[in-house]
Amino acid sequence: MILTVTLNTALDITYRVRALRPHASHRVSEVIERPGGKGLNVARVLAALGHEVTVTGFTGGATGRVVQDQLTGVPGVVDALLPVSGPTRRTIAVVDERTGDTTQLNEPGPTVTPAEWSAFQEAYDDLLASASVVALCGSLPPGVPVGAYAGLVRSAKAAEVPVLLDTSGEALRRGVAARPDIIKPNADELAELTGSHDPLRATQDARRRGARTVVASLGESGLLAVTPEGRWQATPPTRLHGNPTGAGDAAVAGLLSGLVEKLPWPDRLTRATALSAATVVSPTAGEFDRAAYEEFLHRVAVTAEVTAA
Amino acid sequence: MILTVTLNTALDITYRVRALRPHASHRVSEVIERPGGKGLNVARVLAALGHEVTVTGFTGGATGRVVQDQLTGVPGVVDALLPVSGPTRRTIAVVDERTGDTTQLNEPGPTVTPAEWSAFQEAYDDLLASASVVALCGSLPPGVPVGAYAGLVRSAKAAEVPVLLDTSGEALRRGVAARPDIIKPNADELAELTGSHDPLRATQDARRRGARTVVASLGESGLLAVTPEGRWQATPPTRLHGNPTGAGDAAVAGLLSGLVEKLPWPDRLTRATALSAATVVSPTAGEFDRAAYEEFLHRVAVTAEVTAA
Repeated sequence: MILTVTLNTALDITYRVRALRPHASHRVSEVIERPGGKGLNVARVLAALGHEVTVTGFTGGATGRVVQDQLTGVPGVVDALLPVSGPTRRTIAVVDERTGDTTQLNEPGPTVTPAEWSAFQEAYDDLLASASVVALCGSLPPGVPVGAYAGLVRSAKAAEVPVLLDTSGEALRRGVAARPDIIKPNADELAELTGSHDPLRATQDARRRGARTVVASLGESGLLAVTPEGRWQATPPTRLHGNPTGAGDAAVAGLLSGLVEKLPWPDRLTRATALSAATVVSPTAGEFDRAAYEEFLHRVAVTAEVTAA
Repeated sequence: MILTVTLNTALDITYRVRALRPHASHRVSEVIERPGGKGLNVARVLAALGHEVTVTGFTGGATGRVVQDQLTGVPGVVDALLPVSGPTRRTIAVVDERTGDTTQLNEPGPTVTPAEWSAFQEAYDDLLASASVVALCGSLPPGVPVGAYAGLVRSAKAAEVPVLLDTSGEALRRGVAARPDIIKPNADELAELTGSHDPLRATQDARRRGARTVVASLGESGLLAVTPEGRWQATPPTRLHGNPTGAGDAAVAGLLSGLVEKLPWPDRLTRATALSAATVVSPTAGEFDRAAYEEFLHRVAVTAEVTAA
């Protein structure tokens, strides 16, 4: 199975309001709730592609129960989340109906105790035994040490399970040094890691820092992959209009599924780019549109660069 | 016991953010949750004053369970809330740390089915049998007929239980016509009901529409009461600085406790005004400061008008 780790799961709530004005009172016209946190989003996409996926990380409180109840309804996703005493965080996206703009409010998440963190590491090692690949996704909740992902990368490598890391800031910096197989930063995360705003240069620098392969997600420019086998740029078929929420998570799901299916890099990148684009154009935030995905698979352009990186 | 009815209970959530800016992403630094809805707020104040109070209304879903779990921890409050299939609404108050301003996001609440509404009316009639007074508080959730409070007022009068109504808009207009013993509108609600922005004139008009006694809460000007026994104005001791959230509910608790203790009107108004003021100055939103309350009891000025209304 594919294993995804989400240490800071979330209950993602979307509110629609007529017009958001600071200091005013607003009647919310629509409330949508779904399980959130990058690893859970990745798992949903993988399950929709027909893969068996297990999710682990932390869950707690009333919000955690809602997350787990909703996950139970997703076929193909196995829930291996561990309980913590604090409540799973909420994220609230307030959509302004007039402008379509979204204002985001993110709770910090529960404080994880040292005992809870130890219990997770043990459970993670057990899960690795039956994993074909593992993805470490998203931010760290309070209480988890900033070097957490470095340790989880090392455990995966010791178990000979390929490991993808998708996080940001200091957690990414420390994690990269432990030599993960793949990282998937976006342009901002890559610039923060390397200090360079030139995508190719930054991607090469990120490899020197320890990542075996870097797949940078560059928004409308698609994906830039620098791997031991070569370099590729995958470009989406058209200028896309829609909501980019979850597009990066869909790309991660594409990369993971391509890896376990042993597809060559150009095919993995085509799939990741098509999934990402089909998430942007989907009417439901964070879900991919299957018809658009099938169509985009034939329309993503992948160009190889002659010099191997 | 004192009975309070909250048909649209809430989980009141307060978020602190550095500065609220539309279209930006915000990290919430502090999350506070408490049971909400006017009748629950009134009950908490009554319990703190040493009264036995029963709360009824609707509760549902994961948010409803949190509300009920938290109510269990409040000594003196008996939970007689009825289950509904939809989830209890959340209200989110986003406090901007720089300005102190609050931006409010209110979910609409669950849609109550006709069967759920019938079940409530039966349970309410049973509870009236042991009630010394009943307060009908707050907005109506979707599905409950707009004339709901008129029916609940008539049932209370049939059971010879004094009834206080604290709501707004069409629910207030219809409820007043059923002749409740007391209504406690604020200046806006009173103006909306009567069309007059002159408090005394509007208060007298509200009595002609059916309310036996009108206690208008006029913010910094205190309370204006027009009763069959006479008219009084109660003025808080000083210009108050703080958060007015819950001040109206504290005033209702003061009026109810004074009624069951058979205090004369001036004493009821003194108590209601002192509780209200002690809520504004409290460091915790929606709770009253007990020391301030004791002090304000000696400093509220109540002036009678010679002509009986």
